[in-house]
Amino acid sequence: MFEVERIIRTALEEDIGLGDLTTEATVEPGAQARAELVAKEDFVLAGIDVAARVFSCLDSHVAFERLIEDGQNVRRGEVLAWIKGPAAILLQGERVALNLLQRMSGIATQTAAFVAETEGTRARIVDTRKTVPGLRALDKLAVRLGGGKNHRVGLFDGVLIKENHIAAAGGMTIAVERARRRAPHMIRVEVEARDLNEVETALSAGADVIMLDNMSCREMREAVALVDNRALTEASGGVTLDRVKDIAETGVDLISVGALTHSVTAADISLLFEGT
Amino acid sequence: MFEVERIIRTALEEDIGLGDLTTEATVEPGAQARAELVAKEDFVLAGIDVAARVFSCLDSHVAFERLIEDGQNVRRGEVLAWIKGPAAILLQGERVALNLLQRMSGIATQTAAFVAETEGTRARIVDTRKTVPGLRALDKLAVRLGGGKNHRVGLFDGVLIKENHIAAAGGMTIAVERARRRAPHMIRVEVEARDLNEVETALSAGADVIMLDNMSCREMREAVALVDNRALTEASGGVTLDRVKDIAETGVDLISVGALTHSVTAADISLLFEGT
Amino acid sequence: MFEVERIIRTALEEDIGLGDLTTEATVEPGAQARAELVAKEDFVLAGIDVAARVFSCLDSHVAFERLIEDGQNVRRGEVLAWIKGPAAILLQGERVALNLLQRMSGIATQTAAFVAETEGTRARIVDTRKTVPGLRALDKLAVRLGGGKNHRVGLFDGVLIKENHIAAAGGMTIAVERARRRAPHMIRVEVEARDLNEVETALSAGADVIMLDNMSCREMREAVALVDNRALTEASGGVTLDRVKDIAETGVDLISVGALTHSVTAADISLLFEGT
Amino acid sequence: MFEVERIIRTALEEDIGLGDLTTEATVEPGAQARAELVAKEDFVLAGIDVAARVFSCLDSHVAFERLIEDGQNVRRGEVLAWIKGPAAILLQGERVALNLLQRMSGIATQTAAFVAETEGTRARIVDTRKTVPGLRALDKLAVRLGGGKNHRVGLFDGVLIKENHIAAAGGMTIAVERARRRAPHMIRVEVEARDLNEVETALSAGADVIMLDNMSCREMREAVALVDNRALTEASGGVTLDRVKDIAETGVDLISVGALTHSVTAADISLLFEGT
Amino acid sequence: MFEVERIIRTALEEDIGLGDLTTEATVEPGAQARAELVAKEDFVLAGIDVAARVFSCLDSHVAFERLIEDGQNVRRGEVLAWIKGPAAILLQGERVALNLLQRMSGIATQTAAFVAETEGTRARIVDTRKTVPGLRALDKLAVRLGGGKNHRVGLFDGVLIKENHIAAAGGMTIAVERARRRAPHMIRVEVEARDLNEVETALSAGADVIMLDNMSCREMREAVALVDNRALTEASGGVTLDRVKDIAETGVDLISVGALTHSVTAADISLLFEGT
Amino acid sequence: MFEVERIIRTALEEDIGLGDLTTEATVEPGAQARAELVAKEDFVLAGIDVAARVFSCLDSHVAFERLIEDGQNVRRGEVLAWIKGPAAILLQGERVALNLLQRMSGIATQTAAFVAETEGTRARIVDTRKTVPGLRALDKLAVRLGGGKNHRVGLFDGVLIKENHIAAAGGMTIAVERARRRAPHMIRVEVEARDLNEVETALSAGADVIMLDNMSCREMREAVALVDNRALTEASGGVTLDRVKDIAETGVDLISVGALTHSVTAADISLLFEGT
Repeated sequence: MFEVERIIRTALEEDIGLGDLTTEATVEPGAQARAELVAKEDFVLAGIDVAARVFSCLDSHVAFERLIEDGQNVRRGEVLAWIKGPAAILLQGERVALNLLQRMSGIATQTAAFVAETEGTRARIVDTRKTVPGLRALDKLAVRLGGGKNHRVGLFDGVLIKENHIAAAGGMTIAVERARRRAPHMIRVEVEARDLNEVETALSAGADVIMLDNMSCREMREAVALVDNRALTEASGGVTLDRVKDIAETGVDLISVGALTHSVTAADISLLFEGT
Repeated sequence: MFEVERIIRTALEEDIGLGDLTTEATVEPGAQARAELVAKEDFVLAGIDVAARVFSCLDSHVAFERLIEDGQNVRRGEVLAWIKGPAAILLQGERVALNLLQRMSGIATQTAAFVAETEGTRARIVDTRKTVPGLRALDKLAVRLGGGKNHRVGLFDGVLIKENHIAAAGGMTIAVERARRRAPHMIRVEVEARDLNEVETALSAGADVIMLDNMSCREMREAVALVDNRALTEASGGVTLDRVKDIAETGVDLISVGALTHSVTAADISLLFEGT
Repeated sequence: MFEVERIIRTALEEDIGLGDLTTEATVEPGAQARAELVAKEDFVLAGIDVAARVFSCLDSHVAFERLIEDGQNVRRGEVLAWIKGPAAILLQGERVALNLLQRMSGIATQTAAFVAETEGTRARIVDTRKTVPGLRALDKLAVRLGGGKNHRVGLFDGVLIKENHIAAAGGMTIAVERARRRAPHMIRVEVEARDLNEVETALSAGADVIMLDNMSCREMREAVALVDNRALTEASGGVTLDRVKDIAETGVDLISVGALTHSVTAADISLLFEGT
Repeated sequence: MFEVERIIRTALEEDIGLGDLTTEATVEPGAQARAELVAKEDFVLAGIDVAARVFSCLDSHVAFERLIEDGQNVRRGEVLAWIKGPAAILLQGERVALNLLQRMSGIATQTAAFVAETEGTRARIVDTRKTVPGLRALDKLAVRLGGGKNHRVGLFDGVLIKENHIAAAGGMTIAVERARRRAPHMIRVEVEARDLNEVETALSAGADVIMLDNMSCREMREAVALVDNRALTEASGGVTLDRVKDIAETGVDLISVGALTHSVTAADISLLFEGT
Repeated sequence: MFEVERIIRTALEEDIGLGDLTTEATVEPGAQARAELVAKEDFVLAGIDVAARVFSCLDSHVAFERLIEDGQNVRRGEVLAWIKGPAAILLQGERVALNLLQRMSGIATQTAAFVAETEGTRARIVDTRKTVPGLRALDKLAVRLGGGKNHRVGLFDGVLIKENHIAAAGGMTIAVERARRRAPHMIRVEVEARDLNEVETALSAGADVIMLDNMSCREMREAVALVDNRALTEASGGVTLDRVKDIAETGVDLISVGALTHSVTAADISLLFEGT
Repeated sequence: MFEVERIIRTALEEDIGLGDLTTEATVEPGAQARAELVAKEDFVLAGIDVAARVFSCLDSHVAFERLIEDGQNVRRGEVLAWIKGPAAILLQGERVALNLLQRMSGIATQTAAFVAETEGTRARIVDTRKTVPGLRALDKLAVRLGGGKNHRVGLFDGVLIKENHIAAAGGMTIAVERARRRAPHMIRVEVEARDLNEVETALSAGADVIMLDNMSCREMREAVALVDNRALTEASGGVTLDRVKDIAETGVDLISVGALTHSVTAADISLLFEGT
């Protein structure tokens, strides 16, 4: 709640600084305007609420009428929203609103593509912590709007024991046992396993979730059989759109995809002023 | 200066929150570690100084030895830096450092590709305000490290009169004249022109820079001839790697590319602990 | 990490404001002093690291020598730490350091008393969100130092479905099922149950943890038998030091105690200047 | 004014973080609710305005109807206020509102008990700086609502010369004289005296207020006679509810009680949803 | 936009702190009042919008009716605005509103005096970075309201190469060439020249603006002739009201005056309560 | 303490923003420099410690050697301090350091002039709340360094009952009595009196300090006689350097001068690089 406000204010301060020289020089103080947000390609919409808040953060009198809701499919040429208010405010909020909206819609669209590939399987697409620093709240919201689920938000709301932790602890068994004993009881414990032996060790040590790290589909299928629902399984590493269906069919519960947020293609959206 | 500090702190707070449950549960308090940042593909390095600051922000005693400097080409397999310090600190800073480093290197690499295509021409590759909200300082730094130049940072350090401003002012001539009169004398005035007529109008009105908006290469060539060095010319709109060479050869001074920062592919980089 | 820094700075700004009138008026600028933190009663120490940071936040040259570590039992009269540095700094940090140290030690001491009562049982003492606003990080740290465990930190790192949520959702079964489907997979789902019927419903719906809300010890014993390790059980409501042993012996896994943090008696600690 | 806002925002951010998982998972977005704040025991109400601001800070459309005002006596079972608005907002603000309200009412109740004991004497009950870090504004407000008075807020709005200052200055007389000369003329100068000799010295040196530190009632009576209204007298140290009447009857002007804020028992208050 | 809000909040927190003791002690909670802002001398008004925001920041229900707009000339005795609202709010905002309004009007008045002297010439009066730390946005706004223009806002929106930069670069030519190559194309490059030789060098090196530093009027006249509109010229150093007309008549484009903001005489303005 | 840090950081962020374009373009990264702060006129030095902190805030390795201490008289041409460090840092801190130092020294110098006029009388020169918003801590420090004393810092550390409060309370007597009853006992109560009648009323009501508002010297002399040391007396309104000696000789205890901080002439100070 306050986090989205912080993101928007930071973005506006970053862009506007002590003033919008162009608008101050060219636009008459009282001028009103009406503009529309238009899709320039097909995508899944995410961030329309955030875009609305950008303008209301600048001026509470801007009218923002949503025509399409977050999470819906949008076709090229469709109008997403109408915005009405002081011309100066529309011009000052434009870039920040678009930057947020385009990134979020890009994430949602890519997520939806991954989700579509896994339909009919039990696998759920989840994100990672490979988000843009400072924008995690919105990156993760966009993943949900695209039909994905969120993995842990940060280091504070999930235990995920990786190679390095195991090395530091002196073995997987001791690492998992310590985690089960010390971690809050509301938090699940996940362990990264690189082969079937490690899967078995993780299971015996009491892991709640087992990450199958960079395994082939055959290995994952065997791991799923071995685990036999005693823990959740998560495929991780090198997951591409081409390969995700095969991975999903191995029977894993979760497939995490870093590219959902670390390599985003912005959706193409314009803000057009009426009469221009 | 303080801006980079703000970005790093925000990112660390976002990721660590009240604590790193996994490390607290598995790693002994005093444990030391040594790790390396390794390139997993070829790219232009950007952000190694920022990555170093991530760790020093967490603990001033972490040793960070740079082996490659920002702006250099990196080959797959090369070690970028050695990091030595408390294992817990290395684990806590890892994700934030990588998220920043991978994005910045991705931007620098893409910029360098555009710059390479324009070699031998007078055209300079410049960025836009289509950056990730809150990260503009680093996005723009990465463009410079990739060999590009920065356009204005925000609405406060450049006048760029677009269609909407012209409409609001009631004509291009009046808009440009107002801007020349009102804008600070240290700031240049740029105008968006969509055809040769508008280029001529902009020129007469006294524009310092003329943006050739979504023009064909033929039109741009004519515009450059028409302007005849009385103003700078900037190609803008639909600039792709395929097309950028042709654009550069029209003789424009500047080519702005939104995709440099709005659609970034993260460079592939790992942090590996010694002995794992 | 940054949270503790925020707490300390807020406290110092609150107390010192634009200056310490008394010290400025009476103490010579360069005067050095040496002081000791002394226990005026028996307690479990918590917050000695935080107290040290209070002084180093004011002046990085203050020497703070810990004689007893956090989590240890302290006897009346024992010296907890030596502090050496500018007299003005010691006087300015004194109250904030004591306020934090006394509260944290009070919490740890009370927690340890509850933990001692449950020794030999499987029950673990856990805290609640009934902490002092703004100090949750330290309140929860003090509980751990007293031998307790932390329940969720906030609304973001655990699902706890209470009466009001059930009413809003239209029934416990639907509420739990929704939570299991929608909540991140790293987070456990807990449900508040008021009688054995509700325990059974919660279990069937798939709850990971069942809160036995204000039940008698007999009811709790039956609930534990009914659950039969298919979920964790948590006793909650009206837990006092007198009654906690009986509760622990019902076989519950967790006992949550709001009073650990909502009604704290400060431990008695003094900062004495040498030679006074 | 801004301070209370800061406290509330910090508390909400601390508790809600990036989102309320339970409410998001179980409560329908548009659901409305009505709830009441109910006293579960007798106490003096303090913080009802603050509780109202917690909800309006989350959503300006929440209706909060006060039935009892701050400072009034409340009986077990009485409804303090009605709250109406989005169910999600009520659930998200509940814990923070209660944490503040319960602590403040606890402080006011204890203060009122001390005040009641001193009725008929000239003595006024005053607080100390032994407040919870970050909450001093509310802790001190609660003392006033309970009928007490505030001592200085921090080091910046009063001069209080203690043992350590006297030692550093090289004697009480010089310390007091310096303070009278250097301190702003709008600020009173208080000195800690441990026996009648020191009281006399303080008086001669020109102290405005003399703290009778840990004296017996007999000593205090003598000190009051000695001072003979040439300064204010303040009893301090070991003041309990049992002993406060005797102390008040010595004729002192002020009695300061650290326990008012350092050892608080939260008043028992519930937020009940209608229909649950 | 957010900057003015920051300035106002900082000022109010600085002045009010935890509360207005006098108003709390003497004014009844519900009391309403009406007051007027009155000019006690002649001046150019600047800051009336800022003053209005001071009161609305404290309480959105205060009515503030402007009778004179920013930038207008005011005569002694004129009422600038009517303010109506809670007496406590008017008393709490009074000092901050006046401090801002008086400083800004002082700056605008002095600027207008300089501007008046240069009428009929091409010279524009511009400010410098010699503003009060933290208030630059308002200091520069006041200059504009007085009829002046702004030089660069900070180090980030203009290149101004001074002696020290030239020394560090190893010569003026290399310094200017570097700047032209490296600085963003939207930013002009200015160089400080101390004599005609340096003016010539600056011109050849491609400077956009040449600062004539501490030159006599004769030298400036020669410099203007030499430059012959190939760059802008700026007179700087020792500009007083007595001398500014002579300077303007040398034909320079800009005259920068540090005293506009570093040595301000507050305009005399009072806030009078009706009926007092 | 933190306040000065806040002022410096705000000033540096305001001036540097995302970067110093000139230095980045012209100065080599590793270049070192040595510079001196030099007095260009006679004045009382104030702010040399603050100036040092400006540079250390930018880079902890800058060496700053003070040659003259705050509060001392400085002669034109004297070197105040030597600064050594990275050239870029010296250039970036220069303006902020000078802006603070010149204002503070201007205030101290003016204060010292007023103090000199009152020598041999009991009158002390005190400041007001007419300071520059956001800089009060430094404005008031500069007054002390010039030999003046501070009046209350803000609305929170002194009671000053003015006309408007009296009107709102319904009379001076009731206003003063309320204030004496309600205000903290560490705070003095001052009342504004416009004639001898009001002085007498103030005295009877128990005021600690009486402000003689805009009285003639004759009236003030009578007022001082009337008060006869039963309260402090403060001359206020229209105090100029010409008139202050006469005022002081009336026997008042305090003379408050708004112009000390609301109309400051910056002291003339330069930062010169060695070898330029």
